[in-house]
Amino acid sequence: MIEDDLRKQRIETPSWAYGNSGTRFKVFAQPGVPRDPYEKLADAAQVHRFTGIAPTVALHIPWDRVPDYADLARHARELGVGIGTINANVFQDDDYKLGSVTNPDPAVRRKAVEHLLECVDIMDAIGSDTLKLWFSDGTNYPGQDDIRARQDRLAEALGVVYERLGEGQRFLLEYKLFEPAFYMTDVPDWGTAYAHCVKLGPKAQVVVDTGHHAPGTNIEFIVAFLLREGKLGGFDFNSRFYADDDLMAGAADPFQLFRIMFEVVRGGGYTDEVAFMLDQSHNIEPKIAGQIRSVMNVQEATAKALLVDREALAAAQAEGDVLGANAVLMDAYATDVRPLLASLRTEMGVDPDPMAAYDRSGYFARICADRVGGAQAGWGA
Amino acid sequence: MIEDDLRKQRIETPSWAYGNSGTRFKVFAQPGVPRDPYEKLADAAQVHRFTGIAPTVALHIPWDRVPDYADLARHARELGVGIGTINANVFQDDDYKLGSVTNPDPAVRRKAVEHLLECVDIMDAIGSDTLKLWFSDGTNYPGQDDIRARQDRLAEALGVVYERLGEGQRFLLEYKLFEPAFYMTDVPDWGTAYAHCVKLGPKAQVVVDTGHHAPGTNIEFIVAFLLREGKLGGFDFNSRFYADDDLMAGAADPFQLFRIMFEVVRGGGYTDEVAFMLDQSHNIEPKIAGQIRSVMNVQEATAKALLVDREALAAAQAEGDVLGANAVLMDAYATDVRPLLASLRTEMGVDPDPMAAYDRSGYFARICADRVGGAQAGWGA
Amino acid sequence: MIEDDLRKQRIETPSWAYGNSGTRFKVFAQPGVPRDPYEKLADAAQVHRFTGIAPTVALHIPWDRVPDYADLARHARELGVGIGTINANVFQDDDYKLGSVTNPDPAVRRKAVEHLLECVDIMDAIGSDTLKLWFSDGTNYPGQDDIRARQDRLAEALGVVYERLGEGQRFLLEYKLFEPAFYMTDVPDWGTAYAHCVKLGPKAQVVVDTGHHAPGTNIEFIVAFLLREGKLGGFDFNSRFYADDDLMAGAADPFQLFRIMFEVVRGGGYTDEVAFMLDQSHNIEPKIAGQIRSVMNVQEATAKALLVDREALAAAQAEGDVLGANAVLMDAYATDVRPLLASLRTEMGVDPDPMAAYDRSGYFARICADRVGGAQAGWGA
Amino acid sequence: MIEDDLRKQRIETPSWAYGNSGTRFKVFAQPGVPRDPYEKLADAAQVHRFTGIAPTVALHIPWDRVPDYADLARHARELGVGIGTINANVFQDDDYKLGSVTNPDPAVRRKAVEHLLECVDIMDAIGSDTLKLWFSDGTNYPGQDDIRARQDRLAEALGVVYERLGEGQRFLLEYKLFEPAFYMTDVPDWGTAYAHCVKLGPKAQVVVDTGHHAPGTNIEFIVAFLLREGKLGGFDFNSRFYADDDLMAGAADPFQLFRIMFEVVRGGGYTDEVAFMLDQSHNIEPKIAGQIRSVMNVQEATAKALLVDREALAAAQAEGDVLGANAVLMDAYATDVRPLLASLRTEMGVDPDPMAAYDRSGYFARICADRVGGAQAGWGA
Repeated sequence: MIEDDLRKQRIETPSWAYGNSGTRFKVFAQPGVPRDPYEKLADAAQVHRFTGIAPTVALHIPWDRVPDYADLARHARELGVGIGTINANVFQDDDYKLGSVTNPDPAVRRKAVEHLLECVDIMDAIGSDTLKLWFSDGTNYPGQDDIRARQDRLAEALGVVYERLGEGQRFLLEYKLFEPAFYMTDVPDWGTAYAHCVKLGPKAQVVVDTGHHAPGTNIEFIVAFLLREGKLGGFDFNSRFYADDDLMAGAADPFQLFRIMFEVVRGGGYTDEVAFMLDQSHNIEPKIAGQIRSVMNVQEATAKALLVDREALAAAQAEGDVLGANAVLMDAYATDVRPLLASLRTEMGVDPDPMAAYDRSGYFARICADRVGGAQAGWGA
Repeated sequence: MIEDDLRKQRIETPSWAYGNSGTRFKVFAQPGVPRDPYEKLADAAQVHRFTGIAPTVALHIPWDRVPDYADLARHARELGVGIGTINANVFQDDDYKLGSVTNPDPAVRRKAVEHLLECVDIMDAIGSDTLKLWFSDGTNYPGQDDIRARQDRLAEALGVVYERLGEGQRFLLEYKLFEPAFYMTDVPDWGTAYAHCVKLGPKAQVVVDTGHHAPGTNIEFIVAFLLREGKLGGFDFNSRFYADDDLMAGAADPFQLFRIMFEVVRGGGYTDEVAFMLDQSHNIEPKIAGQIRSVMNVQEATAKALLVDREALAAAQAEGDVLGANAVLMDAYATDVRPLLASLRTEMGVDPDPMAAYDRSGYFARICADRVGGAQAGWGA
Repeated sequence: MIEDDLRKQRIETPSWAYGNSGTRFKVFAQPGVPRDPYEKLADAAQVHRFTGIAPTVALHIPWDRVPDYADLARHARELGVGIGTINANVFQDDDYKLGSVTNPDPAVRRKAVEHLLECVDIMDAIGSDTLKLWFSDGTNYPGQDDIRARQDRLAEALGVVYERLGEGQRFLLEYKLFEPAFYMTDVPDWGTAYAHCVKLGPKAQVVVDTGHHAPGTNIEFIVAFLLREGKLGGFDFNSRFYADDDLMAGAADPFQLFRIMFEVVRGGGYTDEVAFMLDQSHNIEPKIAGQIRSVMNVQEATAKALLVDREALAAAQAEGDVLGANAVLMDAYATDVRPLLASLRTEMGVDPDPMAAYDRSGYFARICADRVGGAQAGWGA
Repeated sequence: MIEDDLRKQRIETPSWAYGNSGTRFKVFAQPGVPRDPYEKLADAAQVHRFTGIAPTVALHIPWDRVPDYADLARHARELGVGIGTINANVFQDDDYKLGSVTNPDPAVRRKAVEHLLECVDIMDAIGSDTLKLWFSDGTNYPGQDDIRARQDRLAEALGVVYERLGEGQRFLLEYKLFEPAFYMTDVPDWGTAYAHCVKLGPKAQVVVDTGHHAPGTNIEFIVAFLLREGKLGGFDFNSRFYADDDLMAGAADPFQLFRIMFEVVRGGGYTDEVAFMLDQSHNIEPKIAGQIRSVMNVQEATAKALLVDREALAAAQAEGDVLGANAVLMDAYATDVRPLLASLRTEMGVDPDPMAAYDRSGYFARICADRVGGAQAGWGA
């Protein structure tokens, strides 16, 4: 029963998706945006309330720094959600202009590593088992720094953090082709992340952000490969037409999202071992509704992936029946899974139409009215 | 004599290159950054002082809004430079979240057009003959707005601005593949800009920003084509490895810059009709030095382009001698033009080594010491 | 009723899709492949027989050269199909190594133009009203030939052919980013094709091959733009993950195909004025079945495009409701149109499941048995 | 002395570069093309004769299959060259339509492995120590075959070949983004090749073909990374503007080639351990001259890379001097190394101008006259 599989799906939403975001040209402020991590969690709880499958929230340090993490965790529990991944940030301090853990200056590297270790402290305090590491490190001009020396520095920093991880804790190493570095990025592709993780050990895994690849990259291949190697730690879902656009998952290429989810299922990755996280920027659309829609898009892709008749597929593949095998996959994709999901939701006690239910709830009007004054949360705060 | 041609080269630097810039992740503030348009002009004057070929400065409205434009122009003249292109900005007001001249809301469109007309007023006041129009307009999601209706709105706005242009004035229409819009951009390619300009008439021309193309685009082809049609108005030079990276011109692909300059020369575009402008973001390198280096890079590419033995080239091309024709071009490119340029500079009364001379001048230390307090200029101010 | 619209859809299949094709590495011969144009038409007739919407076949000269075109046309009629577009070929003669109509050698240019004029003769003889012009012309190395001179030559050749067109005849000018030329292609993008067609007049229009764009190009924008200008002549449908892969339409990005069809419908292009043609290479899958599947894929995308609630869409767009407008589009896309199409087919007198019906028909087994000996058709013959 | 380093450079030319090649659209035959491996070696010997740094030739099996490999090796020695890498070919038999070592059919897999083992036999017979493995394996349509199962099959085949390698022998595993497979390629990127090689052991290394990457990939990063891991086995040099264009090395982006060579030098890869090979298709230019030019292009890039003032570079990097460090690199690149190489050649006893000397030699006219009749060599034979 694919309903059983769908019922246990867990998609984590990121606290920063509820704050303001934008491009280098402009951040358009939106009404009702949270002013602090407590309000972000309140918004995230709405996403879970209307979808039933978004029970945890990722935090970003220092954007979500609070005096008392245990209190924040308690607040989350009261809202019906939990704290998920802790995301480190070593890209916004002025010291990081030329890099964080790969900076030519050892003092800056130490500072960056200190922050990463602090994040593990927060994991301990808040009960999180996963640290997500994204390094914006890189260079803008050929010759600017030594590519190989930077790998040595990276390896050293990762080793220190790895050693600090406690029982049951892990970190996920993220790769990204480019931006903000424009010539060379220190962890630019899955191969680099994989090679470092293999050397470190089982607590280091690769996280696939679906927007972080070169044009033409077959992402589902990477997923299949990493699952085969036991090194797929999770996803940052979002979608893109060009670069790291951070649009809603499934908005740009729903067929690709389906193919990715199919490889997850086929490769045994549809378990708690692989974290399904969103990482998006709702620059122009409302944030909570944008998250709900994104969760639904991932859910629909998952349902279609689960619908694939794998026996028929394997048979056609074994016979070398190109059109037949492709047709088995496309049949699942062509299926309209919205009725199935609507009835599943009803069964799970949530509204069959999460977007409409959220609209009707009046929550958005309420936060617009309530959240007046104070500094809206964004990437800088 | 290619020295004669090089002596008359004019490269315009943009006022905004002297202020802070960055990515959506972080703007790293730099010491000594100007606080107002007057200080920006002072910095631009240094670039001209040390290169001898950067006599004008482009302004950006509203970033360079001042109470008295005639006074600003006088200030420029005293510094030995002039005001060049006026750049409009219809992307940073909250009203422009869904577009400016293509916005579904007619009131927003009117506001945007008002701003464009104001820019022509400023051109009149300051004695500029060129308006540069870049529209960040576009949509992030399929269906978000009607692609074709937006073209109608765009055409209407351009028509109004075109009518307002005075004798001897023109506008340059810029195109850009993506960013900040992530699904559809209203002027995404040269074809779109060209088609609008042809309909409007001779005062409307296309400007080529070298960073605004899809991967694999042959930019020199576009240059050759627009020159053949009499529709190339100018360049925004910068360089890129990935997207619109806005690195220093010639830093990422100096061979491409050479090929572009060769088509300019070959197509009769090496005249005052075609504006050579820089449009860059010195996110991590010092700004004035970055501009000097960029001007030198364009100059070196120009020198190499002028060195091409066009008679030998034409002969090899006529014979279908693939390797021979390619070799003629490559011979010019392989030439080290730095000695030639050093002696040209001496002759022109500037230091043969602009970077070293600027370093020695102590200007940077002076502005770092002097420009304390106040708000540093940036894209937002 | 969208059924009415779907009933009148006409998709043209290309004669060369029934022959062997491959990559530069290998052409894998397939059993049952036609040996001459008569057999190609027989195969194409099967695609029409089982889909009901593929009534015409495009020819390629010289691959489909026959002594008596009237006889070939009669043969087609007897099979229940007609002759559609005539496709010129000026890329396979040894003389065309450095180009056809843009070749530096005037004798080669004349030869190429002769061939194009011969194609119009064939149109007269066979009753075709559309000539499709694709030029593989370009250069592999910078400097190899003069970009601008080649445009002059191109313009001259197009002018001659244009003058030769009879009453009710037109030509479609195709553009392509690259391949087989690897540095510069003489008609690389829609802007180039458009500019030439505008100068020539109403009988010259642009054809969009969906595989001929740079990565990241928004094809539906081009469609909308060309329709607004009255310059969209037709499509060569196929799909791609990387370059000009020529896979089955809808196989790589069915959502993109849907968006393209939506712009066709929205822009008034769903008429006989815009030709819907397939241009694909079934390198590893069986050819007739591959064509049937492709026709079905285009049909499904069309059905979804016609299902879009345009009133609701316009309302959401006017309100600036980003998520609402996107949802209207996505609702149509998420719909499973296979039942609707199955019943439409029954009504039209064809089998509701074309793939299964074709399989059952035994046609493939028959041609495998019958077509023994002789030279299989391919791109070279 | 960089001359010492340049004197010991060894660039291997591929036997197939001397035969005909082309695109799927057309292979343009050229005059004087070899009819068999013996004639190919004769041509390759000319490249060495005029450059002095191309002493070995790569063979491709079965294109270069001969009855007596020892005789072929003797022939090579007499010509003053040696046999280098043996290149396997498992992509041109009809059996490989759906893959070779990853084919769903075990019989085809066995056949492919047999061929690979035969190649090692040839290595033994001919005294070659390196086997190059490129697999065109992949799929054209989603669902066509099981991505992960194909990895299992690949791993198994590689293991068998690895075991067969003798003392002092190794294989180089090549990766390629796409073509001829258009949806999924079984070894699509360096990460995949690296992961397999690490598991196999020290005799398995990665080979970097400079044309096999996604747009925007930083190839020198990969080079630096693989050198750091001891897994860079060699290069297939060529250049590209779009896909795997196989143009002459250094023709499309000479700055990139320089950056790559700099990382080779910096990373300790400028030794016999890393094989420098050309892999190009001279589709329209003459082949021997094309090879000479390519060898010279690689040599020029190497000279510039060796000219980098690494002490100054390291100092600027350590200080975080972005412009200064970049300038050190660019100074080397801007240097015209042609005089240095001309005098080096004189010293080495070859003509200072290899292209002119080859032209003057009359070799090309001679082979055009002599090689009449017989079947010209190409990719298919």
